[in-house]
Amino acid sequence: MTDVDAGSTAVSGPILIIGTGLIGASIGLALRRAGVSVGLEDIDELQQATAEQIGAGARWAVGSQDPSIVVVAVPPRSAGSTMADACRRFPHATVTDVTSVKAMVLDQAQQAGADMTRVVGGHPMAGREVSGAAGARADLVDARWWILTPQSRAEPARLAQVRSLVQTCGAYPVEMTPQEHDRAVALISHAPQVLSTVLAAQLNAAHAEYVQIAGQGLRDMTRIAGSDGALWTEILAANAGPVAEVVQQVVAHLDRFLSDLRAVEQGDSDAVAGLTRELLAGAAGRARIPGKHGAAALDYAQVAVMVADRPGELARLFLAVGQAGINLEDVHIEHVLGRPSGLVELAVRPEVQADLIEALRMRDFDVRGTG
Amino acid sequence: MTDVDAGSTAVSGPILIIGTGLIGASIGLALRRAGVSVGLEDIDELQQATAEQIGAGARWAVGSQDPSIVVVAVPPRSAGSTMADACRRFPHATVTDVTSVKAMVLDQAQQAGADMTRVVGGHPMAGREVSGAAGARADLVDARWWILTPQSRAEPARLAQVRSLVQTCGAYPVEMTPQEHDRAVALISHAPQVLSTVLAAQLNAAHAEYVQIAGQGLRDMTRIAGSDGALWTEILAANAGPVAEVVQQVVAHLDRFLSDLRAVEQGDSDAVAGLTRELLAGAAGRARIPGKHGAAALDYAQVAVMVADRPGELARLFLAVGQAGINLEDVHIEHVLGRPSGLVELAVRPEVQADLIEALRMRDFDVRGTG
Repeated sequence: MTDVDAGSTAVSGPILIIGTGLIGASIGLALRRAGVSVGLEDIDELQQATAEQIGAGARWAVGSQDPSIVVVAVPPRSAGSTMADACRRFPHATVTDVTSVKAMVLDQAQQAGADMTRVVGGHPMAGREVSGAAGARADLVDARWWILTPQSRAEPARLAQVRSLVQTCGAYPVEMTPQEHDRAVALISHAPQVLSTVLAAQLNAAHAEYVQIAGQGLRDMTRIAGSDGALWTEILAANAGPVAEVVQQVVAHLDRFLSDLRAVEQGDSDAVAGLTRELLAGAAGRARIPGKHGAAALDYAQVAVMVADRPGELARLFLAVGQAGINLEDVHIEHVLGRPSGLVELAVRPEVQADLIEALRMRDFDVRGTG
Repeated sequence: MTDVDAGSTAVSGPILIIGTGLIGASIGLALRRAGVSVGLEDIDELQQATAEQIGAGARWAVGSQDPSIVVVAVPPRSAGSTMADACRRFPHATVTDVTSVKAMVLDQAQQAGADMTRVVGGHPMAGREVSGAAGARADLVDARWWILTPQSRAEPARLAQVRSLVQTCGAYPVEMTPQEHDRAVALISHAPQVLSTVLAAQLNAAHAEYVQIAGQGLRDMTRIAGSDGALWTEILAANAGPVAEVVQQVVAHLDRFLSDLRAVEQGDSDAVAGLTRELLAGAAGRARIPGKHGAAALDYAQVAVMVADRPGELARLFLAVGQAGINLEDVHIEHVLGRPSGLVELAVRPEVQADLIEALRMRDFDVRGTG
């Protein structure tokens, strides 16, 4: 893992982005934000036109200046051949991609004749639940990890160029081998997708009233099951081996859990301790996921306010905060059953928490709690 | 499933709540909000004092007027015996509980000598990630389902009384048998807990850098794995049979998924269609979870604003909205890696969306998108 190094100069353009969906168009926006020249190319005229219209770059034309870097942002099945094509079309350009699987795509690029001295695979760890250029945002990869998987034949100067591209986009470069990358995403992204999918599929045969009473836990556990099935078929197929390894471990672990549950059901009180061990191991694993990245943790003070269900109350609250001269660092509105519950949690710097509480109480707000 | 019926008069008190943790104290607050007399009893003096202090009710004393309803809000292992005790202490009172498993707890109540003509089991579908009276909130069960599991011997008048209690607390009563309840929560809550735990446990052996790059999907999938291990041991042990049934189905389904993945890995292109079928089944299951409850869906218009990373910008935004005389219906701040990203999504009624955009642009806000 590489340290974050910030604030270098913008990457040298022009950059050609092939594939102007969500990720490609967002990279275009981020590069344009930094003043870099961007060309766009997509076989889908709608995506192409949308990406141009939102300012992600200009239509690539024959006779344009050759790109310094080509970013291939097409679906996994065609990423390898598109990288090889890019190598042929632009004999001096560095070629990278943004595909969420690496070993297979880079193999396919090589088999299709790509010049692997100029290829540096990449994968920005970012996405949205919407797809297409219309969902693109300049900040999509801001402060996100962007994994780079240079192979042994890649020239160091090519890697340096792609690192510069990543930093210009506001993301943090991390280096791994293609195989490490694929094992990592199998664990943290692809196997979770399989679990979410299988859990959600159990709901198909369930009584409607059982599903009706579902709470936030089930919602969170099945959220990613709602993702694009066609794209996920490609991802899982392209990373089938590493995903199968993780799923096999999960199945073995679930089988042990199941044995404990069956033993408890049969009255074996010793097996209860097994459940506790499993639950504690899960909590320990959960605690390994970092909450924040990079800079020191920001410890804000929280003030919870119950806002009455009357028009304008939320605006009155923020007006009161502004009039008191207090900077809000963050706002969270608790939701119940998908609707705002009325409980608003305001985050402020600890030294102004008392002032905020006083200001809100003076204005008859129902301050509920602090933390 | 019972229809929601709203706006009846408050339940007749006094209500005695035994166990003043998060749920017990929150019910006390909700009843006090409705003007109902509440007595509180807890063997833990700290919980008792905290619950009194936040206004959840008054300390129960010998010689107080007998309660019309006793609400047993103690951990699963002692709920049955506490319900039986309550029947003996108060020969006319209706007795209910809030335990998240029902068949075993009601069996234990009966075995401990409870008068089952006066017992109506209950389970409010609400919770927070904090525990104890200090986390209690009057609105914890507002607009939540509260499952009631009357057994055949329960007198109809007792059920009507507990329904009135539930409605007074702002929740929606739903009737099921204890066995239906336990199967339902096994599916929508307990089995998801097991899956989240097992997935999170895989992270213990993972490279730190693999975990470091985890995104929102893994965070969502493992959030509930961080829950209270001692309480969850009790819950899973008390509902071991129904939970094992669901986990066994999940394992069988994962095994099929695993076979498809292994076949794809071996180059069987037909198996790819199997992956697609599984993914589509998951998406269909996910779509069965209702987004909202009861009243017609509220379709707000969204306005996304990128707020500069300068002190006071968030306050300036809300001030601008208030000055424009626009009612905010909801606010969502997008987070990246646990910190506010700067992108604020404002929800307003559709008819004022254009006014809001104009007002914000006039004040030089960077309006990014609408929906």
